[in-house]
Amino acid sequence: MSVRVAVGSPLAMKILRWLLKGRGSAPTPTPTPAPDAAPRQLEHFSKFSPSPLSMKQFLDFGTRNGCEKTSFIFLRQELPVRLSNIMKEINLLPDNLLGTPSVQTVQSWYVQSLTDILEFLDKSPDNYRVLSDFSDALINIRNRHNDVVPTMAQGVIEYKETFGVDPIINQNVQYFLDRFYLSRISIRMLINQHTLVFDGRSNPAHPKHIGGIDPNCDVIEVVKDACESAKVLCDQYYLTSPEVLINQFNDYLQCGIRPIGISDRGGGVPLRKIDRLFSYMYSTAPKPVVQNLQTAPLAGFGYGLPISRLYAKYFQGDLNLYSMEGYGTDAVIYLKALSTDSVERLPVFNKSAWKHYKSRNEADDWCIPSSEPKNLAKFNNHI
Amino acid sequence: MSVRVAVGSPLAMKILRWLLKGRGSAPTPTPTPAPDAAPRQLEHFSKFSPSPLSMKQFLDFGTRNGCEKTSFIFLRQELPVRLSNIMKEINLLPDNLLGTPSVQTVQSWYVQSLTDILEFLDKSPDNYRVLSDFSDALINIRNRHNDVVPTMAQGVIEYKETFGVDPIINQNVQYFLDRFYLSRISIRMLINQHTLVFDGRSNPAHPKHIGGIDPNCDVIEVVKDACESAKVLCDQYYLTSPEVLINQFNDYLQCGIRPIGISDRGGGVPLRKIDRLFSYMYSTAPKPVVQNLQTAPLAGFGYGLPISRLYAKYFQGDLNLYSMEGYGTDAVIYLKALSTDSVERLPVFNKSAWKHYKSRNEADDWCIPSSEPKNLAKFNNHI
Repeated sequence: MSVRVAVGSPLAMKILRWLLKGRGSAPTPTPTPAPDAAPRQLEHFSKFSPSPLSMKQFLDFGTRNGCEKTSFIFLRQELPVRLSNIMKEINLLPDNLLGTPSVQTVQSWYVQSLTDILEFLDKSPDNYRVLSDFSDALINIRNRHNDVVPTMAQGVIEYKETFGVDPIINQNVQYFLDRFYLSRISIRMLINQHTLVFDGRSNPAHPKHIGGIDPNCDVIEVVKDACESAKVLCDQYYLTSPEVLINQFNDYLQCGIRPIGISDRGGGVPLRKIDRLFSYMYSTAPKPVVQNLQTAPLAGFGYGLPISRLYAKYFQGDLNLYSMEGYGTDAVIYLKALSTDSVERLPVFNKSAWKHYKSRNEADDWCIPSSEPKNLAKFNNHI
Repeated sequence: MSVRVAVGSPLAMKILRWLLKGRGSAPTPTPTPAPDAAPRQLEHFSKFSPSPLSMKQFLDFGTRNGCEKTSFIFLRQELPVRLSNIMKEINLLPDNLLGTPSVQTVQSWYVQSLTDILEFLDKSPDNYRVLSDFSDALINIRNRHNDVVPTMAQGVIEYKETFGVDPIINQNVQYFLDRFYLSRISIRMLINQHTLVFDGRSNPAHPKHIGGIDPNCDVIEVVKDACESAKVLCDQYYLTSPEVLINQFNDYLQCGIRPIGISDRGGGVPLRKIDRLFSYMYSTAPKPVVQNLQTAPLAGFGYGLPISRLYAKYFQGDLNLYSMEGYGTDAVIYLKALSTDSVERLPVFNKSAWKHYKSRNEADDWCIPSSEPKNLAKFNNHI
């Protein structure tokens, strides 16, 4: 028996787990603003381009030259910039999607979190109390946004059920969600680093971590751990699981890219279906049972593959599937090896981005063959 | 020793060879018009969308229901449409590229060939002499355009030497040349099928071919032949060549895609360089010695890989390289197995295409990290 391994997801889940550290604690209740009550500063901050940081900067800042005051001053500018840039794109979603209760909820979280950070714009960085309040506010924001992915996914499902899907809407939603989720990953990275680095205690389980980053990460160990998690899931559903062989090719790493490849012989996926494996809208996963927004499960939306790819892309890597139908599938995760090359990949709202949402009715620049075969003889009628 | 195999090129060369059949005969001299003397019908025909044909239609038309009169009536409309559509895009090239002597030469060939076909618009399809003249005109056009690829390549080199390259121009040229060469492949396919099917003789070397198409093509034999050609080249340059193992996975072809994979362990290519392997402008090949336009060599421009991909794409297939740096490279060619699925992929000139040439100065919708590392401490100056 051979089973297609859901490659990458366990690795992403692992990264996700530490990004979501502290998720267990309940969010402090705050009054939820109406989603259209976006502060007027939204326009101001959305005009700035986000400032991508490198892994080296995260590491240096977390060890050598870290200063809570500097971080506070940077974040009270940078977080509103990142939030405002993506909020402008949320506003450009098709009305029927923007109007779903789930997307309205997500939008209100963004408005509230932006408002929360703007409170600190005129506060003194020399006041210890301000720094402490800021850290609390960040933790509160992180918890508020814990369920953004399943809630947004729920909005897409609500839209699909009412209006159906077509390739243009699918393309639109794909463009938006790839940018939206990547923006979210980056915002949580900033929040986690600030709150972990400056909480005054080292992490007892991982004393050598810099915030959420393991500077001595053993990739093979991470892969083994991910395989173990996948094996457990696979055994649960299929009562058996395939052997996984891990080969390391990268003792010979000269140019900064560290590939991690997983192959199977599970029969492959036709080329025309590969794109669907990464599609949020055409996900082949059955609709998950959502009890309420508080407990919406991440697993079950079929988002494992596209979101794993975003984690790889976040620091300029990638995740690709290479499938030969009738044979099997190779999955390759590319990650930058040098901390100076690993720079955040961040969406920026500008005219190019705006055009993506507005060009939905444009004709393709390649011919679309008609479904009817062409009848060459009809040309006889022209004479 | 392991050597990176120039995958695909020999296969493309083989297809190219039959597309170029008759290349040996010298073109009939015709007065070359000034490139800006495009006939006014260019505007008229460029408003039609090209009509893609399926492999089944090529085969059926070449055997069961082929009629020279019908083919003549179809082609005197379809060839001007395909020529005019791509001529509109030539006109949109950056002035400095459009103005090179080589691109001017290519443009004059297109103008002349369009003019040649338009001569037949008011001719009677019932006159045997007209059909015979049309066939001669097509052969003449095919020969006139024999050197389009190296001549255009020469134009790109002239441009690069004078103006250098930047990523935007590279993107522009890549978009144009992929469409331009694919348009050319399709036009030569139509011309070859018409002239071979209706020349009144079967091909003595390949009596079962339908025009230029082998309906019983043995893919494994084609691959073996391509490997032999690559081996000869490799032996010439390196005095040795690697063993090539061919495995067939496709006894079990259920869904219409026939993959052909070639792997090596030649050390791989970094992810960031994969795109360059397909780039016309960033080709890593050394500048070939061009003696004159008549004898310009195709080999030597580093175009083997991108043009092989176009041959695969022409009938809705693809060619991908999957490389793991430090290990090796897999190349996969996807081809449709069903003759009804193999439909010509043709560029169409419309507003979407037009925008590609006009948006060259637009900002990217992802942040571009500055080359200077961000100095977080500078934020202190704001207070």
